[in-house]
Amino acid sequence: MGYGGYSYIDEEYEVDPEGDLVTLFWVEGREKLERMAEGLAAESSVGTWTQVSTMNTYVWENLRARVFRIHRVSETSGFVWIAYPFEHFEEGNLLQILASVRGNVFGMKEFTSLRMLDISLPPKLQRLFRGPRHGVDGIRRRVGTESERRPHLGTIVKPKVGLNPREFAGVAYEAYMGGVDFVKDDENLVDQRFCPFSLRVQEMMEVLDRVKDETGRRVMYSPNVTGPLSTVMKRIEFLEDIGHDTVMLDVYMMGMSALMDVLNTLHETGFYVHAHRAGYAAEARGEFGVEFRVFAKLWRLLGVDQLHTGTGVGKMEGGPALIAHYAEVLRRQEMEEDMALLSLPQRWLEHIKPVMPVASGGLNPGHVAALLEIFGPDVVIQAGGGIHGHPRGTRAGAAAMRQAVDAAMNGTPPEEWGEELREAVERWGTVDPAEVRRRLTFIRENADTIADAILRGGYSTAMRLWNV
Amino acid sequence: MGYGGYSYIDEEYEVDPEGDLVTLFWVEGREKLERMAEGLAAESSVGTWTQVSTMNTYVWENLRARVFRIHRVSETSGFVWIAYPFEHFEEGNLLQILASVRGNVFGMKEFTSLRMLDISLPPKLQRLFRGPRHGVDGIRRRVGTESERRPHLGTIVKPKVGLNPREFAGVAYEAYMGGVDFVKDDENLVDQRFCPFSLRVQEMMEVLDRVKDETGRRVMYSPNVTGPLSTVMKRIEFLEDIGHDTVMLDVYMMGMSALMDVLNTLHETGFYVHAHRAGYAAEARGEFGVEFRVFAKLWRLLGVDQLHTGTGVGKMEGGPALIAHYAEVLRRQEMEEDMALLSLPQRWLEHIKPVMPVASGGLNPGHVAALLEIFGPDVVIQAGGGIHGHPRGTRAGAAAMRQAVDAAMNGTPPEEWGEELREAVERWGTVDPAEVRRRLTFIRENADTIADAILRGGYSTAMRLWNV
Repeated sequence: MGYGGYSYIDEEYEVDPEGDLVTLFWVEGREKLERMAEGLAAESSVGTWTQVSTMNTYVWENLRARVFRIHRVSETSGFVWIAYPFEHFEEGNLLQILASVRGNVFGMKEFTSLRMLDISLPPKLQRLFRGPRHGVDGIRRRVGTESERRPHLGTIVKPKVGLNPREFAGVAYEAYMGGVDFVKDDENLVDQRFCPFSLRVQEMMEVLDRVKDETGRRVMYSPNVTGPLSTVMKRIEFLEDIGHDTVMLDVYMMGMSALMDVLNTLHETGFYVHAHRAGYAAEARGEFGVEFRVFAKLWRLLGVDQLHTGTGVGKMEGGPALIAHYAEVLRRQEMEEDMALLSLPQRWLEHIKPVMPVASGGLNPGHVAALLEIFGPDVVIQAGGGIHGHPRGTRAGAAAMRQAVDAAMNGTPPEEWGEELREAVERWGTVDPAEVRRRLTFIRENADTIADAILRGGYSTAMRLWNV
Repeated sequence: MGYGGYSYIDEEYEVDPEGDLVTLFWVEGREKLERMAEGLAAESSVGTWTQVSTMNTYVWENLRARVFRIHRVSETSGFVWIAYPFEHFEEGNLLQILASVRGNVFGMKEFTSLRMLDISLPPKLQRLFRGPRHGVDGIRRRVGTESERRPHLGTIVKPKVGLNPREFAGVAYEAYMGGVDFVKDDENLVDQRFCPFSLRVQEMMEVLDRVKDETGRRVMYSPNVTGPLSTVMKRIEFLEDIGHDTVMLDVYMMGMSALMDVLNTLHETGFYVHAHRAGYAAEARGEFGVEFRVFAKLWRLLGVDQLHTGTGVGKMEGGPALIAHYAEVLRRQEMEEDMALLSLPQRWLEHIKPVMPVASGGLNPGHVAALLEIFGPDVVIQAGGGIHGHPRGTRAGAAAMRQAVDAAMNGTPPEEWGEELREAVERWGTVDPAEVRRRLTFIRENADTIADAILRGGYSTAMRLWNV
């Protein structure tokens, strides 16, 4: 695989912090760890399964990937850090970059498990991208919560599909009046016959105006524009023409090729971008695939303003510690290496602004206090069933969510809760925030012990500890 | 989750063969199978985790998914068949369809394993797509092998990246002269500084002309155009302007949004489309994700002409039986349900032409006879290292591959093999085709027993039996 007896493993190699792209993998398989690490670096850069006559010194010296650190868990498993020189890549073509570092390698048969745990994106690469146009601060300004800094409240109109535009807008109006700041389409609602896209948006723009007239609040609506890129672009033009300012993209479904173009356009035109992540878990869960934070970093680089992260307490996978970490990945400018989370260091340039995390999936008012422990106030808390399933309907459900946020932020005791919140909690119960806080504190205070356990036990230990 | 006490499970439901889209899932988790099946159908159609006040009879009757068959393996695991009414979908928006049937469901925490095993695409949907412009017959006409019907031979120029345009074209020329029909870029070579796209293509077009002048053969070259869609479109325009006729797309990396547009354009302009699948295995392997044949069907629907399928014998995952099945999925117009392969029936309309499978990944001349057992003659056999790693270089390596094809098709005994083939086999050995044939025959002849074992043991049994 190597060249003239040389190897892809070079533990003396010094990573170039300006230009090298770094990845961290969990590797487990049928061969010796070092041999698999070698194969991983070869296949993802300049090598293949055998030595070839056409290799030369320029290629080997300048373009190959370097395994610069290996941590062995067993003879045939461990953690592998790889650095890629910037020259290896086509500038700004994320697809070429990903085809290298996370392309063929997942299909190689010597692996019984291969997980891309993290990626560290160097400044040279970041300079080729724009990052979020608005980010956390911009969205707060849009909604008018800069000084208040409470969580934003969102809802997904339910049922997921089937309401006609007027019914849809009617449900949304009730939700806004009950207290939500943000309404989004569900991921499988786009432009079906029962609810044409353009009619739905027009109905919803009237609702936004009406809510503003009646309450003074500047609430938001993100129509789902996801589809073939040509259609997406037409939808965006239409929205621009009629003066709408927010869109939802199903970012994983769209794929990188269209996403790079559309986020560029959305950045230029000033749209607020809500990113749903349907389908991501087919890669992010199981023995093969890519940790969610890798996607989170790439989508932040490309410029989404808010992104679904899971909840830690609802119907979607991921324990509180992991979800709290994802929120940090989206919001912080600097992260240190943290072996308790198997994460790489990451420094974002200033223009790659913080992204607002969105907690969504199986939430109801009883989760809100726990969510504040996990996310802090910079988060969109979204409930669909947890609002429209309220015993007294959508407006009461939205009010209950809003009461739950106020109660959690002010420490209001249950006896002083509003009627709607009490009804919701009667129906669905509560998750104890103190218990969530204990778990988060335990993990934070025992980070070194946890890191040691993970380095001894490997990825399965990490999965167990992260999801307690 | 249901509506007024009704359930998403309806084993009396009769699937509409014209319009219903059907999926088959392996489900394993922390709750009863029936409850998880219910959750799967709800989340992927009109429901959520709780009953909502906004549900109505129209939505429930006309748009919900139906679990029309369940096969229980244990209390908490089994196979689940789901039908979606055509009305649920936005016509022709594959992203909306996939966001429904394979969107949020992978993230739901009750599952410890969720595999989308197959999809059956109804005629109503097929009529909205064009399928391959050329397919197997068209590519054979292009290369001139309609009557000969031998496998096409391909190579990837190695090293994967780093050669300059002239060096690249030089290696390709040697490969063509040795006997390959088809040269492709590697998945991580697109438009880097060391090998600009336009210069590489121009050098290669000269090589194609030169090979035609010197040998009369009309060989092919697929430059990798993968990138943001706007750039892809520019590259295609450039290729059209200079009269080039073939492209390579990294279809999984690109994602569905761009792919729908670009394959439309390529169909109109008449390009031959070679599809690489880097990254697919992050979804296709492990406890969560999507079987490769689902991608194969979608990419055939959209219109690729040839597609990587794995090899059964090289460096990539997948045993011979599974790879032979993928080749059939690409080439046949009708497939019956086959529980030994956990597959659904599929009828393709005539315009969705057969796609040429591409065997690629760790191949050398010693694999060729075994590959013919797996694929038959309608296949592109691609070797990179197995050609450029030949002891006497690229031209000899290509000659060895060609000799291996001829020997396998004519049953030539080793003592009559050409010098180049003998040298290659000395270096890398051979895989016994009789052994591969025995394994394929065993699986075919014991399909009922295997199906029984899989229905008793579940997905892990299938993985074991498919990959023997």
